Amino acid sequence: MAILVVGSVAFDSIETPFGRVDHCLGGAATHFSLAASYFTDVRVIAVVGEDFLPQHEAVFAARGIDTRGLERAPGLSFHWTGAYAGAMSEAQTLGTDLNVFEKFDPKIPAAYLDSEYLFLANIDPALQARVRKQIPDVRLVCGDTMNYWIKDHATNLAAVLRELDVLLINDGEARMLSGETNPVLAARRVLTMGPKALVVKHGEFGATAFFSDRIFADARTAMPFRAPALPLAEVVDPTGAGDSFAGGFYGYLASQPVLTPAVFRRAMFYGGVMGSFAVERFGTERLQGVTREEIEARFGLFREISHLEGSD
Amino acid sequence: MAILVVGSVAFDSIETPFGRVDHCLGGAATHFSLAASYFTDVRVIAVVGEDFLPQHEAVFAARGIDTRGLERAPGLSFHWTGAYAGAMSEAQTLGTDLNVFEKFDPKIPAAYLDSEYLFLANIDPALQARVRKQIPDVRLVCGDTMNYWIKDHATNLAAVLRELDVLLINDGEARMLSGETNPVLAARRVLTMGPKALVVKHGEFGATAFFSDRIFADARTAMPFRAPALPLAEVVDPTGAGDSFAGGFYGYLASQPVLTPAVFRRAMFYGGVMGSFAVERFGTERLQGVTREEIEARFGLFREISHLEGSD
Repeated sequence: MAILVVGSVAFDSIETPFGRVDHCLGGAATHFSLAASYFTDVRVIAVVGEDFLPQHEAVFAARGIDTRGLERAPGLSFHWTGAYAGAMSEAQTLGTDLNVFEKFDPKIPAAYLDSEYLFLANIDPALQARVRKQIPDVRLVCGDTMNYWIKDHATNLAAVLRELDVLLINDGEARMLSGETNPVLAARRVLTMGPKALVVKHGEFGATAFFSDRIFADARTAMPFRAPALPLAEVVDPTGAGDSFAGGFYGYLASQPVLTPAVFRRAMFYGGVMGSFAVERFGTERLQGVTREEIEARFGLFREISHLEGSD
Repeated sequence: MAILVVGSVAFDSIETPFGRVDHCLGGAATHFSLAASYFTDVRVIAVVGEDFLPQHEAVFAARGIDTRGLERAPGLSFHWTGAYAGAMSEAQTLGTDLNVFEKFDPKIPAAYLDSEYLFLANIDPALQARVRKQIPDVRLVCGDTMNYWIKDHATNLAAVLRELDVLLINDGEARMLSGETNPVLAARRVLTMGPKALVVKHGEFGATAFFSDRIFADARTAMPFRAPALPLAEVVDPTGAGDSFAGGFYGYLASQPVLTPAVFRRAMFYGGVMGSFAVERFGTERLQGVTREEIEARFGLFREISHLEGSD
């Protein structure tokens, strides 16, 4: 079933120990859409500038992603400049040029209104709320956020959290949002804020899902679930790994008829799989060219490295 | 089959957000022995001072641990003082009084010479080497070390590493020992130094094993294996968690007739299980009183939180 995603479609200039790229296609909605497109239909809402050319749109089209919600505005697209060093576990942001994103007022095309899954990528919670309001009858709402919104836009973010089924954040964000240093207490606190499930991303250590008793129709939700990440000898560019995780995770969820604990677990694995592909090349290169066969093979690797009985 | 462990039997004075304890029984060999004692016979080599009383020896005796290798020396036992704050992921060492440990010259009692498994806990690599030399015909040698020995005793440590089958260290130690920031490259480098397998501990994120093609008789060793840790709402005292992991891991290995990939995987899970018990109370309290039924139940939890199909 179709996912509607709102977020940034942007250009990234990135430097890592493996090289540098200038103005490559990026943005949370881009990485998310490409990753999710291997599992289900995806529709994007974002704003781009005059530097967004047919060749960029073709990246979406090649994956069958619906771009009718891609608004064109005069000026330049959102541009992020960042660098990674050492263990590459954290980006150093060198520049954030919002450009056309500064006055973004998301509007949902009529053709998108029957979307059943909504993903609110990491943007201003006021925009997330505006999109949520325009499409009230979706089946599941999943969202992302970051330290900046947690710290300085707490009230707007609180309103978005109340509407979420699943929140995806990282360890530092979970601590900041909850005010708790212990990860279990942090998760319990976040689950009182609205989300019925919390997925905490640990970078190279995978991700952990915590569940409230409101998420599944059946009741087996007491235990968290921990999905591995694949130890990679070469991480070329971590940009978009979290958004690719979200795309794989949510794309798989949306492709399944019922949300069960087993579906949620497999979705976590597919999230890790898509994140592991994303970081193998700069920008969106790897996510554009992966095959469904490669995805299934890597899913098997994830199982093999984490299951007592190995692959089967 | 019997494990011979050499390491510290000490007293710890610890402060955590949950309270403080003064001079409670501790030391790497103590935590290791208690954890391993639930799986197999354990024999300890260490030196203690006049402050080591019958009540302390009784802790070992109650678990059937052989203390004939516990040497008594005039003076006080090794004493460590440390504190944990915040997320409690790292200890702040406030004092290390080597005391009788300073002149420790490990001697292996004749009754220990038929031990088939040797564990070299985190002590001076010169001492580790001396023990190794006295018991050349063991079936498997496993060892631990730390930043201090890696940095300032590199030559002695290199000699120990050449003799090891399995090395257990944490992420920071793996980076320091290998000079590599990428965890896969770090593991590959360490596996050229001697160990046939490397277990890297990630604290609250579990542990990853990397294998050389020399570790198993059969050849399925290309993939690493990642074991989870249990997300705990209350970590009272992390002291000894790594040694308890080692004890559960190696104790289970030593209890099995053949070292296979499946045995190694289960050993990693039992390591996590014993580590998760250790941190629930101060000092050795929890490891003294756990039952085999509790261990198996928690092993089931580890499986449930990490396997796609949940417990079975």
